[in-house]
Amino acid sequence: MSALPAGRGRTRLIAVARGDEAPDTVIEGAHVFCAHTREWLEGDVAIADGMVAGIGSYEGGERIDARGRWLVPGFIDAHMHVESSKLTPAQFARAVLPHGTTAIVCDPHEVANVLGSDGVHWMLDASEGLPLSVFVMAPSCVPASAFESPRRELTVGDMEAILRRRRALGVAEMMNFPGVVAGDPSVLAKLEVRGASHADGHAPGVTGRALDAYAAAGIRSDHEATSVEEALEKRRRGMWVLLREASNARNLRDLLPLVREYGPEHCAFCTDDREPDMLLREGHINQMCRIAVAEGVPVEHVLVMATLHAAQAHRLDGYGAIAPGFRADLVVLDDLSSFAPSLVLAGGRVAARDGVAEPFAVPGIPAHVLGTVRSAPVTDADLLLEADGPVRVIEIVPEQLITIQRTVDPARSNGHVVADPSRDLAKIAVVERHHATGRVGCGLVTGFGLRDGAFASTVAHDAHNVVAVGTDDASILACAAHLQELGGGIVVAQDGRVIGELPLPVAGLLSDRPVEEVVGRLDDLHAQLRDLGVTIEAPFMTLSFLALSVIPALKITDRGLVDVERFEIVPLAAG
Amino acid sequence: MSALPAGRGRTRLIAVARGDEAPDTVIEGAHVFCAHTREWLEGDVAIADGMVAGIGSYEGGERIDARGRWLVPGFIDAHMHVESSKLTPAQFARAVLPHGTTAIVCDPHEVANVLGSDGVHWMLDASEGLPLSVFVMAPSCVPASAFESPRRELTVGDMEAILRRRRALGVAEMMNFPGVVAGDPSVLAKLEVRGASHADGHAPGVTGRALDAYAAAGIRSDHEATSVEEALEKRRRGMWVLLREASNARNLRDLLPLVREYGPEHCAFCTDDREPDMLLREGHINQMCRIAVAEGVPVEHVLVMATLHAAQAHRLDGYGAIAPGFRADLVVLDDLSSFAPSLVLAGGRVAARDGVAEPFAVPGIPAHVLGTVRSAPVTDADLLLEADGPVRVIEIVPEQLITIQRTVDPARSNGHVVADPSRDLAKIAVVERHHATGRVGCGLVTGFGLRDGAFASTVAHDAHNVVAVGTDDASILACAAHLQELGGGIVVAQDGRVIGELPLPVAGLLSDRPVEEVVGRLDDLHAQLRDLGVTIEAPFMTLSFLALSVIPALKITDRGLVDVERFEIVPLAAG
Repeated sequence: MSALPAGRGRTRLIAVARGDEAPDTVIEGAHVFCAHTREWLEGDVAIADGMVAGIGSYEGGERIDARGRWLVPGFIDAHMHVESSKLTPAQFARAVLPHGTTAIVCDPHEVANVLGSDGVHWMLDASEGLPLSVFVMAPSCVPASAFESPRRELTVGDMEAILRRRRALGVAEMMNFPGVVAGDPSVLAKLEVRGASHADGHAPGVTGRALDAYAAAGIRSDHEATSVEEALEKRRRGMWVLLREASNARNLRDLLPLVREYGPEHCAFCTDDREPDMLLREGHINQMCRIAVAEGVPVEHVLVMATLHAAQAHRLDGYGAIAPGFRADLVVLDDLSSFAPSLVLAGGRVAARDGVAEPFAVPGIPAHVLGTVRSAPVTDADLLLEADGPVRVIEIVPEQLITIQRTVDPARSNGHVVADPSRDLAKIAVVERHHATGRVGCGLVTGFGLRDGAFASTVAHDAHNVVAVGTDDASILACAAHLQELGGGIVVAQDGRVIGELPLPVAGLLSDRPVEEVVGRLDDLHAQLRDLGVTIEAPFMTLSFLALSVIPALKITDRGLVDVERFEIVPLAAG
Repeated sequence: MSALPAGRGRTRLIAVARGDEAPDTVIEGAHVFCAHTREWLEGDVAIADGMVAGIGSYEGGERIDARGRWLVPGFIDAHMHVESSKLTPAQFARAVLPHGTTAIVCDPHEVANVLGSDGVHWMLDASEGLPLSVFVMAPSCVPASAFESPRRELTVGDMEAILRRRRALGVAEMMNFPGVVAGDPSVLAKLEVRGASHADGHAPGVTGRALDAYAAAGIRSDHEATSVEEALEKRRRGMWVLLREASNARNLRDLLPLVREYGPEHCAFCTDDREPDMLLREGHINQMCRIAVAEGVPVEHVLVMATLHAAQAHRLDGYGAIAPGFRADLVVLDDLSSFAPSLVLAGGRVAARDGVAEPFAVPGIPAHVLGTVRSAPVTDADLLLEADGPVRVIEIVPEQLITIQRTVDPARSNGHVVADPSRDLAKIAVVERHHATGRVGCGLVTGFGLRDGAFASTVAHDAHNVVAVGTDDASILACAAHLQELGGGIVVAQDGRVIGELPLPVAGLLSDRPVEEVVGRLDDLHAQLRDLGVTIEAPFMTLSFLALSVIPALKITDRGLVDVERFEIVPLAAG
């Protein structure tokens, strides 16, 4: 994928580079980072038709004074899911451009679970013409497992159609590492899909022979390493190590010794999943730069990981450096420690100043990505829990995606197992919401600290059915009914009545509002949950992973409780 | 371009990597170079289906003892012309595999000049199934200039057809840098040809704004730098610096300070043009490793330039490293200074031992690449030189491609300008040989030291017409007639009679014989030329560049003398 314009645009760029025409814009006097030599050059940077024409001395054009400041390439996120921000691509762009991010490589597998390939095509449509360059990988693992119920499976044919689109690059993170390692032909077929330039990996804790097998399949990156040893093993196998700093997986500091000891080659930065509050309050790739520099990595090594290396990992030609024929994605920094850009240019145009994005045209939202909550009405009967003797309970682990499988003697009422707030035992329900099948999986969860009421979300990895937790059935039912009305979102209820909401009308996953508003709403909901007794830090994020059937130990989908280690549906009764 | 097999091959490879099936071959006990971390790993290397399955400990398979030795990835030549070796692809493979070269990226523009796109397609056909991986770039500059007469022009359409072939990668060296810098639409169209993943450059001495313009066009490599300053300028503009060590351009030592000061990133090795004797006597990429290590570059930096970086420059996935899912192109070294491989594996099979290639099936040579010398019979009249007063003379510069334009008062006989061996003035003639037009360009040359006889060649860059130099017309005519009979080659004549020959039947450029035989023949011819008075080192190579109309100062084609600086045909008379 090349950044270069064809035809007239290229001719003009060459004329400006040659010195025969005036540039559109000149950034004067900055120390200019050269990613190819990891040094700072002195000179003015000329821009024409959205591209860098050269570094030197130029007449004419709009002048931007950057004397004494640092000019670096726009930051690139090597692997992420826009959906985690709960923002549309346009609002996401508005949120991250002020942090200096000018390109992302995203795997839109959340919208793919809800909307099939339509969701991926919408993500491409909705990011067309944005100042942020949005590249898309074709989701490889929809559904995440046979225990989950997305709208439909994404096939090799769907992937091939996605990969015919401009800005679609390769095969998105291959999360089905057991399938790859086992040599499952249907899984390998996805790695061999026509039109893919490369395949991203996802191999948490996979080491030794299993990792050999995974790499032998041709997978050339991984973002799941949590220790230096794991990351080193992956790099030795020829994989790009994408150092991750996500809301739910802050791995950067632990991995930086790899860079300090072995250099920044074959390393790049990624955020994977960032909640809107982390974007707003901490930043994006620039926050990773800040940490890495503070941890003693030379700033030139930090910058190549944040820019050129991400482009190279994805074979993006003309991105990630300041050189003739590279896209003019440029960040002006007042210092090399805070990484708070004073100015951001994307494609040669000012995209953000002093932390605020410049206005740009926001594409409308088509009807087909709205109104996606199509669950059958949930009734009391759907929530009845029947089991003799001790039962399985999902125990959440604060700040982790894994859960523990507990066995408890539950409270009972009229012969039915019920929530017991005095022992922090809440009811959890997953309601299928794509085809109104009426399928509801029900069980118990502990660890939230919920004493009263209920909360629910249509953000429920990976199939994004409705997931609800509550101490009383009436509040759970109120949540489910209101999510149907909203077309998706996050809601809180008490005494059978909804008391708070964050509408997420796009696929039931995304707001169409700015990040500040989304974070404000979430703050309010978090405060309500604290009032209802919830003690953990990020209850909605925790909730959203309780339906993900590929992370140990006990999870729940609309098909029932899933023992992930045994990889099978199990009954509530522990007997 | 990926090295990985699809379907069953990949499934088996994964099974071996996983440890469920025995490998085909295991290389035991070597220090294994890891290109991604630039360190040495200890372990056995398992091979299955031509690919590396892993590094560790394996049961079964054929065992190769490499204890205490060094195992490195096969060397990759990032830019070269097979034709300079005067060998067919198969014989070239036989010549370089013992030196550890397992992949080359070649620009077959010499055969393209003689055979049109048929020549490029033949190069792809003739390299199919060889142990050497041969990648091809689509020639971008046939003809080299309007003053040259190849068989036909290679169009954008021809390039597009070439780029549809497997193993065809991108746009070959864009030698028409003035056209690029000027923004000539027909030149830029070649850079935008469909199917090209990238474009190689060729910008000798191009610096400053002109280099900005060249890079802005999207050209991402250059192999013409002769000084550190020039190479650094190119690297700063985001170009791969391909360090060159050719027979006629030994630039490596001069460029190594770039690597020592700025590291090996964005640097790789290439040989461009190597004569057969250099291949046989000095080696190939391994000779560059030898020099670079002797010049103080850390061996790990040398090795990444000789392997992985060349693959990355050409976006060759699965080449250039020893890791699962990479092609098992492997070199066993007994030391890290001589770089004389004791064993070479290509695609997992032994390809050479102790300097000798293993036998392999050599493809037959199709009729259409033979019999390409189709010149009209040359007569005395074609060689008559008419000019009053002083005349232009081409003065050769030993060991360089440039010439000097001299003016002399020539000897005359019967009113015609004639050779004058007493002043080292020989006659030079270029005979059009593709379409039997009868076009002959004629002039004078000084610097060979030829006292008697003539020598001639159908290797005459870039159009590869017949070029002959002689002190008497009868010997020149004998040479031309004999080259026609041979279907091309190099010949020496005395007293109007041919006394020595090297047949080059394939396109008039290549022998079908092994390198040792070609070198032996050339040695004999060189000895004959010394007997005839020739004093310079490489007279045939020098001769072959006298028709190249894009290198200063005075050259000659079938259309006449070319003043390269004025870029026009000039008469013999200097007046």
